[in-house]
Amino acid sequence: MTLKVTVWGENVHEQTNEVVARIYPDGMHACIAAALNEDPEIEARSVTLQDPEHGLTEDVLENTEVLLWWGHAAHGEVRDEIVDRVQERVLQGMGLLVLHSGHYAKIFKRLMGTTCSLKWREAGERERLWVVNPGHPIVQGLGDYIELPHTEMYGEPFAVPNPDEVIFISAFEGGEVFRSGLTYKRGNGKIFYFRPGHETYPIYYDEQVRRVLKNAVKWARPEGSRWIDSCPNVPPERAPNPVTAKGEGLHKPGEEGFR
Amino acid sequence: MTLKVTVWGENVHEQTNEVVARIYPDGMHACIAAALNEDPEIEARSVTLQDPEHGLTEDVLENTEVLLWWGHAAHGEVRDEIVDRVQERVLQGMGLLVLHSGHYAKIFKRLMGTTCSLKWREAGERERLWVVNPGHPIVQGLGDYIELPHTEMYGEPFAVPNPDEVIFISAFEGGEVFRSGLTYKRGNGKIFYFRPGHETYPIYYDEQVRRVLKNAVKWARPEGSRWIDSCPNVPPERAPNPVTAKGEGLHKPGEEGFR
Amino acid sequence: MTLKVTVWGENVHEQTNEVVARIYPDGMHACIAAALNEDPEIEARSVTLQDPEHGLTEDVLENTEVLLWWGHAAHGEVRDEIVDRVQERVLQGMGLLVLHSGHYAKIFKRLMGTTCSLKWREAGERERLWVVNPGHPIVQGLGDYIELPHTEMYGEPFAVPNPDEVIFISAFEGGEVFRSGLTYKRGNGKIFYFRPGHETYPIYYDEQVRRVLKNAVKWARPEGSRWIDSCPNVPPERAPNPVTAKGEGLHKPGEEGFR
Amino acid sequence: MTLKVTVWGENVHEQTNEVVARIYPDGMHACIAAALNEDPEIEARSVTLQDPEHGLTEDVLENTEVLLWWGHAAHGEVRDEIVDRVQERVLQGMGLLVLHSGHYAKIFKRLMGTTCSLKWREAGERERLWVVNPGHPIVQGLGDYIELPHTEMYGEPFAVPNPDEVIFISAFEGGEVFRSGLTYKRGNGKIFYFRPGHETYPIYYDEQVRRVLKNAVKWARPEGSRWIDSCPNVPPERAPNPVTAKGEGLHKPGEEGFR
Repeated sequence: MTLKVTVWGENVHEQTNEVVARIYPDGMHACIAAALNEDPEIEARSVTLQDPEHGLTEDVLENTEVLLWWGHAAHGEVRDEIVDRVQERVLQGMGLLVLHSGHYAKIFKRLMGTTCSLKWREAGERERLWVVNPGHPIVQGLGDYIELPHTEMYGEPFAVPNPDEVIFISAFEGGEVFRSGLTYKRGNGKIFYFRPGHETYPIYYDEQVRRVLKNAVKWARPEGSRWIDSCPNVPPERAPNPVTAKGEGLHKPGEEGFR
Repeated sequence: MTLKVTVWGENVHEQTNEVVARIYPDGMHACIAAALNEDPEIEARSVTLQDPEHGLTEDVLENTEVLLWWGHAAHGEVRDEIVDRVQERVLQGMGLLVLHSGHYAKIFKRLMGTTCSLKWREAGERERLWVVNPGHPIVQGLGDYIELPHTEMYGEPFAVPNPDEVIFISAFEGGEVFRSGLTYKRGNGKIFYFRPGHETYPIYYDEQVRRVLKNAVKWARPEGSRWIDSCPNVPPERAPNPVTAKGEGLHKPGEEGFR
Repeated sequence: MTLKVTVWGENVHEQTNEVVARIYPDGMHACIAAALNEDPEIEARSVTLQDPEHGLTEDVLENTEVLLWWGHAAHGEVRDEIVDRVQERVLQGMGLLVLHSGHYAKIFKRLMGTTCSLKWREAGERERLWVVNPGHPIVQGLGDYIELPHTEMYGEPFAVPNPDEVIFISAFEGGEVFRSGLTYKRGNGKIFYFRPGHETYPIYYDEQVRRVLKNAVKWARPEGSRWIDSCPNVPPERAPNPVTAKGEGLHKPGEEGFR
Repeated sequence: MTLKVTVWGENVHEQTNEVVARIYPDGMHACIAAALNEDPEIEARSVTLQDPEHGLTEDVLENTEVLLWWGHAAHGEVRDEIVDRVQERVLQGMGLLVLHSGHYAKIFKRLMGTTCSLKWREAGERERLWVVNPGHPIVQGLGDYIELPHTEMYGEPFAVPNPDEVIFISAFEGGEVFRSGLTYKRGNGKIFYFRPGHETYPIYYDEQVRRVLKNAVKWARPEGSRWIDSCPNVPPERAPNPVTAKGEGLHKPGEEGFR
């Protein structure tokens, strides 16, 4: 069965910035979905902020195994009840890939609990994303690093909790560094933050970036079942048998035999 | 210099439940502050939900190094802008001890990013909190475990992120288990969740519980300086010197000598 | 392609203890391999301490994706160069399931770096292994807990590093608790420690225990590629372009256009 | 009471390499101890590989709260029983600072369980160690980064387990990155790996590096008590009272009153 993916795009820069519209005529979200759909195992669609319920209806989320999120200029316009809905699905087991300026998205800040701040500079700098574990599924098909000729710099400190794994660390022309690929587990959901993706550069056409996205949605796919949240008042389970202070009444090794 | 501590109490059960009022005539918050004040290194005060700004004014938080939080019936009445303020201080470096039903407090859910749900049962069961690292500062002065004769049971699954350290694991009469002492770091703030504390039992008079609270506020005290959040647009630092592909121009070992 | 699994058994108790020989006529290792082989996706074989090179030849390890380890009385007889070999394969990506008294196996202590000590008691006590994340792949097919009527008690403190995830926490008749299912990542290898399995009880015939082992070998299977260790002396990569202190020479947003 | 520190130096390069002897006439270990002794709270001594028992007698370790380790050319000459002794003290609570090429020291590999490999290049490159949490005690007194004009490059992948905290990330002239300040907890011991320190450069005279070492020994000092390892066979604790399936016999809330 194909892996069902939804790509959420803010779709604001595409509408208001000529450079962005020229690079991504159908929107970054459509470009990313098309990249994912190159892989026959993946079935990706895209939705935007402007769609009813921001495209993230109960039905869409019910049928999404991994969600990608790109936002920047309009984080505040995402309605809290939609963020609640997405958070619920992540904690149940839906995978989440947070891209670039999505570090300040409500959903990412909600799951991290920190400010997710960083340093930045728009100066078209070269970025080198070094691979930290060459065996990791997310980096399959890459060499020692990905090199992107022009990017928006993000620099440490990156105000996030200590990640479960660091996948990439970047160096920039201007001298900064940044943990540009990070994994987290929240509830039953796997989260991957992936830094590259400034809207005025054709980053989502880069073959290595596209490879990472394909690898990452497969890494993030739910394993197991959904963890449905509850806070139940429970009766006691049948208690273990009582035991006296000195161990009387307990079995000695060898007495039990085969049962 | 004494460690400045603020104990936040919801102060609802104390006003509405005879049993609670009898056990804690001045409120759980005052009982806890009094316990902490037994230690000459600590200077604790208490504030409540009903105080202006829930007692957590900018001035109070500015002068609080560690905050304790007990809430249960009125989590929803805590105003979001006060929660924002507390979260900001924690990320800067203020320590936070979350007690018992505070697992569902807005501030704890905000910092964890998960539901923080659990199983529960009010049946006056005995609880044994086993120590997981006998050398840890939080457990100093304790034996192998703390035993509380009557508690409200909390059972796994406890829907929180994997903690940095597990301090206590509890067993209950009815057969359940629970990670009853957990530490986290968020931003520059240390967080300790400590389970015991159901309002209808005199748990905060227990000498071992009081010892844990004293140890824990000292463990949670800010070290270093405040991490003031910012997301600045920065100019490039003076870059490292250029290097050619084959390493020409770089120094060979031994050439640098003493500088 | 089937998942290639090797089950390593110490095969000492089976030879020297009548009770054990009666419960496990072919050895615990063969019982476990048979359990795994019930699953058509898994292809398991077993080897023992007494085999040449303890059954863990270069060829066997080369063709093992997940290794299970049961040892108790003869940890010291496992040759260090075989432990080196196993550690190398785990760090490359081979999964490792460490069972019961394997907490003191050389390979587990090697990967953990701690003593891995615990408390224990052989008194045939009932154990309840509570599930900590009901959505986790390792616990699929289970209810809220596994109950084993007769086990050897292990109690905290369990002297291991903080795990990546806690899968099970146990309560015992005698009142102790123990983190009985733990996951770790070391290098590119996934490790699962699973507590039950005292040799004088028929634990490896328990359907739920067998289910956990099947789930866990699939969880532990290598994803990605092998991480082959090296410590290379490398020439510099072509450096990023030089940047002046004030950002001159860097591109301004919008100038780059489509590339 | 002063913090008792021991600095362990391999003292091989100082004896065999003219450049090193000229920079560190008394040895790197003595230079580091002198730096630490500038702080009135710290009392540091140094010992070397050539001393009886490598200077790490039972008495010395008994009276060491934090140990620093610099080794490079002679890791294999450190006797295993001395490594056992150091590991035991770390797990009890002694702090450990591992410096530079100590990444390949037996004690560090022992505590990490991984290869601890990395990439390297001796070309006198400039290094910029960026601070990842500006509030952290280890980075007090520093700005946004430490800059070292000439170092030996270390590059990712750094084959270590995911750290508890990342303190510094470095960028090098040649384009590589490296997690150059990492913290771990093993048993009751705090561990800090700090990268800079190649023997042919006067790095341990750098004021900021010396500041980090002072901050780090204070961070690493044992809190609490020693965790003395044991694997005891224990009698059962007096068990919780038995409970029937429907909760009969358990107390209802309000019935307990004040005890």
